[in-house]
Amino acid sequence: MGLIVHKYGGTSMGSTERIRNVAKRVAKWARAGHQMIVVPSAMSGETNRLLGLAKELQPAAMTPAALRELDAIAATGEQVSVGLLALALQAEGLPAVSYSGWQVPVHTDTAYTKARIGSIEDQRVRADLAAGKVVIITGFQGIDDLGNVTTLGRGGSDTSAVAVAAALKADECLIYTDVDGVYTTDPRIVPEARRLATISFEEMLEMASLGSKVLQIRSVEFAGKYRVPLRVLSSFTPWDIEIAEEARSGTLITFEEDEKMEQAVVSGIAFNRDEAKITVMGVPDKPGIAYQILGPVAAANIDIDVIIQNVSNDGKTDFSFTVNRGDYQRTLELLKTQVAPATGAAQVIGDPKICKVSIVGIGMRSHVGVASTMFRTLSEEGINIMMISTSEIKTSVVIAEKYMELAVRALHKAFDLDQPSEAE
Amino acid sequence: MGLIVHKYGGTSMGSTERIRNVAKRVAKWARAGHQMIVVPSAMSGETNRLLGLAKELQPAAMTPAALRELDAIAATGEQVSVGLLALALQAEGLPAVSYSGWQVPVHTDTAYTKARIGSIEDQRVRADLAAGKVVIITGFQGIDDLGNVTTLGRGGSDTSAVAVAAALKADECLIYTDVDGVYTTDPRIVPEARRLATISFEEMLEMASLGSKVLQIRSVEFAGKYRVPLRVLSSFTPWDIEIAEEARSGTLITFEEDEKMEQAVVSGIAFNRDEAKITVMGVPDKPGIAYQILGPVAAANIDIDVIIQNVSNDGKTDFSFTVNRGDYQRTLELLKTQVAPATGAAQVIGDPKICKVSIVGIGMRSHVGVASTMFRTLSEEGINIMMISTSEIKTSVVIAEKYMELAVRALHKAFDLDQPSEAE
Repeated sequence: MGLIVHKYGGTSMGSTERIRNVAKRVAKWARAGHQMIVVPSAMSGETNRLLGLAKELQPAAMTPAALRELDAIAATGEQVSVGLLALALQAEGLPAVSYSGWQVPVHTDTAYTKARIGSIEDQRVRADLAAGKVVIITGFQGIDDLGNVTTLGRGGSDTSAVAVAAALKADECLIYTDVDGVYTTDPRIVPEARRLATISFEEMLEMASLGSKVLQIRSVEFAGKYRVPLRVLSSFTPWDIEIAEEARSGTLITFEEDEKMEQAVVSGIAFNRDEAKITVMGVPDKPGIAYQILGPVAAANIDIDVIIQNVSNDGKTDFSFTVNRGDYQRTLELLKTQVAPATGAAQVIGDPKICKVSIVGIGMRSHVGVASTMFRTLSEEGINIMMISTSEIKTSVVIAEKYMELAVRALHKAFDLDQPSEAE
Repeated sequence: MGLIVHKYGGTSMGSTERIRNVAKRVAKWARAGHQMIVVPSAMSGETNRLLGLAKELQPAAMTPAALRELDAIAATGEQVSVGLLALALQAEGLPAVSYSGWQVPVHTDTAYTKARIGSIEDQRVRADLAAGKVVIITGFQGIDDLGNVTTLGRGGSDTSAVAVAAALKADECLIYTDVDGVYTTDPRIVPEARRLATISFEEMLEMASLGSKVLQIRSVEFAGKYRVPLRVLSSFTPWDIEIAEEARSGTLITFEEDEKMEQAVVSGIAFNRDEAKITVMGVPDKPGIAYQILGPVAAANIDIDVIIQNVSNDGKTDFSFTVNRGDYQRTLELLKTQVAPATGAAQVIGDPKICKVSIVGIGMRSHVGVASTMFRTLSEEGINIMMISTSEIKTSVVIAEKYMELAVRALHKAFDLDQPSEAE
């Protein structure tokens, strides 16, 4: 008997029939004695429909004023789905009440389309829970200090759910999605990929940041910061399975390192083809040059991922980094027109047809030779490595996009990920 | 150069192309130097789509908790359209900002699905207008004292527009709709119907309450209470016609009685087939009986229209009234199970196949024989009158629904409404 947060994705909310099933599943948990908060996404396709309408009308330059309207429009998708779910729960005979982000309120900053949650007030929700109601809260959105509607960006509902769970000190946050857990890699690319029963928070963070689409990275960060027990599980199991069985399905993201985890060297292979590489060539190798190059990029609100600086040659160096592929042209433009003249760079070149493949595992901390196994495997497949980036629990390489599937399959096999680990 | 409120209906907002046209029209007014507030409806079909989804999920009993969700869902239709219109105006190069009812805020009571506006705060809107922005405000909705979203009921956007115009003391409120003004009667029934250049507030109030669909009655009440100059005009004229021409098109609802109006005896014929008649027979004719019968009906939130009490016979009387046809079964049930036993009524009977036809005109005040002309005309057509109700400026009859068109055409001719009045 605890306080449980359920999060349902757009596919789970995709039709009135599916919403009814969500209501039945939530009702099952409520009737088992749990206090329930539900954070649903917009019905699948709805956010795209709304943004499509906006796109037909929006001005060429997306000023903050225009982004503000975009957020107000996009936020309605979730406002509809929370109302529909509340009605479906009431039809199941359960008291239920829905709130939009501004009603809770969920306070965010004013970074329209990519706002960050600052705090969540809990009085109203607690009062409803105490009164025996299921509380349904919109994902994806909040309100800034001036009373403007903001959204958290794509996948933001995961973050909303975890943030709500953190604010209310929930016992567990269950993320219902269209996969039944976290896999060693994407099963669409490697059919032998296995579901992990548990994964450490750090590994999950790397998997998410490296392109695994299971959870939005900020939701994992939030879970880590507030130590919210998080479970990813399938919304396609029948709603009426035993609650005990459902409660241990999927993949649990854990915060304690147990021995079991120490035994697996590599837990999974992540990849991301949504990146592009840019190289600024022949810049003077002097203190402050990295900031001179990346400062303007960050100021333009462009996220930078892997960064490599070559060793200096004749007082000149090459500086490479990757950005989201959608930001590629804009970044290239910025570097050519502003950064290159200011730094005296010889040339700016880029390549949008790259991808990043990463091996992730807490085991790497204590096992030597993991990175070299990775490099050998890629070399045996004739794959050239363009960039390398490492951390304590992951090693990433940037390679040509066309080799992505080949690399993922070869690495999955090289690290024995298709074999159940001894501890499981 | 004044403060102007434009209201656009769902058809005018029915596609991105039409929204773009609305933006161009508003931009024309703004560029002519007017401060502009726009109140658009939801895109046509959207409210029905949302309520259709809700209907598939809602509980059998529509409790206040369920109606609350219904309002939160329905309100999103306008939240999308204000955002889209703001984007379209920005694309036209005009600063524009949209607000939902809760952001203004538009304060209402808590009568979900039929809330009433209490007050509208004007600070935020005034600041935007002073900064040169076009302000776009959702119609149809507001927020109650507890922060719940409420809606004003069908057609509520008219009321929102007039209420905003009243709160901001606008110079004129222009209601753009799919007809080009107020007609002597519905041109679909009487092709000879003429558009009125002006109509008095009182006549418009009667026309609206009697079933003319041009304006929601509460918007007319609001306009009267706060003396908001109101103009009904077409949204289908090209957006780029001369602003002077547009500003005198349609029908102006006036508050001053001038001589012109005195000359027309009857201004228009209104009708409403959305009614049903109920008769409580053989109740004791004693003080308080009307309240005993109608009290429970009003308590059930059922609107009553025409009320007739027959002269007493042997200390017993018959009591008839009309309700919206949608409330017919519920009212009948209520009377049979609660009112009849309590009052000792002999019988409760009803007829849902009726309609109400009314002649409206300020001229009636000073002209005798108007009602008798009406009765004679109907008699000559062989139409039986079931109920009669009169006021200073209208006479209504309840007749069988099947005679409606016949009655309207005959009356339109009998009062020479197909001839331009001398003053026009």
